[in-house]
Amino acid sequence: MSQRNIKMILSYDGSRYHGWQRQKTGETIQQSLEERLRMILQEPVTIIASGRTDAGVHALGQVCHFRTSSRLAVDVIRNGLNALLPDDIFARDISEVEAEFHARYSAKGKLYEYRILNREDRDPFQRHHAWHIRTLLNTAEMANCLSMLAGTHDLSSFRSSGSGNTNPVRTIRRAEIGRGEAGLLRVMIEADGFLRHMVRNIVGTVVEAGLGRIDLSKFEAILVARDRRLAGLKAPPQGLFLVEVRY
Amino acid sequence: MSQRNIKMILSYDGSRYHGWQRQKTGETIQQSLEERLRMILQEPVTIIASGRTDAGVHALGQVCHFRTSSRLAVDVIRNGLNALLPDDIFARDISEVEAEFHARYSAKGKLYEYRILNREDRDPFQRHHAWHIRTLLNTAEMANCLSMLAGTHDLSSFRSSGSGNTNPVRTIRRAEIGRGEAGLLRVMIEADGFLRHMVRNIVGTVVEAGLGRIDLSKFEAILVARDRRLAGLKAPPQGLFLVEVRY
Repeated sequence: MSQRNIKMILSYDGSRYHGWQRQKTGETIQQSLEERLRMILQEPVTIIASGRTDAGVHALGQVCHFRTSSRLAVDVIRNGLNALLPDDIFARDISEVEAEFHARYSAKGKLYEYRILNREDRDPFQRHHAWHIRTLLNTAEMANCLSMLAGTHDLSSFRSSGSGNTNPVRTIRRAEIGRGEAGLLRVMIEADGFLRHMVRNIVGTVVEAGLGRIDLSKFEAILVARDRRLAGLKAPPQGLFLVEVRY
Repeated sequence: MSQRNIKMILSYDGSRYHGWQRQKTGETIQQSLEERLRMILQEPVTIIASGRTDAGVHALGQVCHFRTSSRLAVDVIRNGLNALLPDDIFARDISEVEAEFHARYSAKGKLYEYRILNREDRDPFQRHHAWHIRTLLNTAEMANCLSMLAGTHDLSSFRSSGSGNTNPVRTIRRAEIGRGEAGLLRVMIEADGFLRHMVRNIVGTVVEAGLGRIDLSKFEAILVARDRRLAGLKAPPQGLFLVEVRY
């Protein structure tokens, strides 16, 4: 009997997980999902995501797929899975897709949001969901840096090591900063693909500009240098949300 | 040397605490604060809050006071305390007040908010901060019930046992429901004082009306009966926020 290909759209709060990918120690999102699906489908499954999220990183719309011999209706799988999952992971949508669909290789682009709480007072309710920066940031300068990223670039300066030797050229379709309520800043970055820690490395460097430690020409010099050692520190994981994957 | 009277305004995420009040087992907000203040003030202190919050209940503006012989400036106390506190408790404001000020007895009123997530899908990011109800609630009917509460009433029907024999008459200044984004409902209740579990018992009963299990005349009958056994179940703690205490 041929296997069905199943696509899932997930939201999860990554706070208490050791990231997406299954590993020997520490609970992961992938493992949590695979264990429950195995119970429902009565067979082991391997889930492939659009990309791994790191420990502490969240998703509003992560996409993944798996293949199964089970004939269960997708609504039955969805309801069963959500009943078994812990309350920090939710399967928003489950559907059957053509055999060729691959969550990672079929992806045309992704949208990430990075939240910064920019005010004197910390907020107990956002402690796992934003990077708290007390010093008032120059958001106009940050917006200027971000707009420089739009287009196709070699983004080696914003790639963490350990990411293999994949092509470092990516096309950024959108890179902007918006102001929410009560000091919340949202950095939105949409691209055809992302290098390891790319959003967090970009945000860390753009924040340097917001603090006045580097100017626009220095930011441009970092971008064109293609040298990770020049960029700012990596922003912490808890502000990062994978919003959407586009196919 | 005379003791100073210090007032604090706090926000805290109550998720991982066994409520406000110091107790033998389990971490509490009071204990967490008293231990840090003792380090800063170099003397033991007893903190008195406007009222206790239960396990899992949150505060945006809890008020408390304590007396101390310390001469430290209030800004020094605030900065030291916030540096030592875990990130789910924050001292928003610390000020010196007249000797007569008492966080509980001087309070003229309080405002509570109760958050309900009323939609099919659960939200991993609100799991500790709203009551998830899947069935669509009739909010017009809920608003009608709430408006019936405005004024001065014997609220025994909404008081949990174990609250002693204090006078059950309270004046409710505001009782209404508002709609936020993405299925979030906010019940706001402001009164000169609250009986034990009063907001949660009211919300539990108003939700019964929203589900069509009781109508407006039944709600009125429950209110005037002054009998806790008639009211609905107590709403769970995680939706409740103490917003403000008025003096």
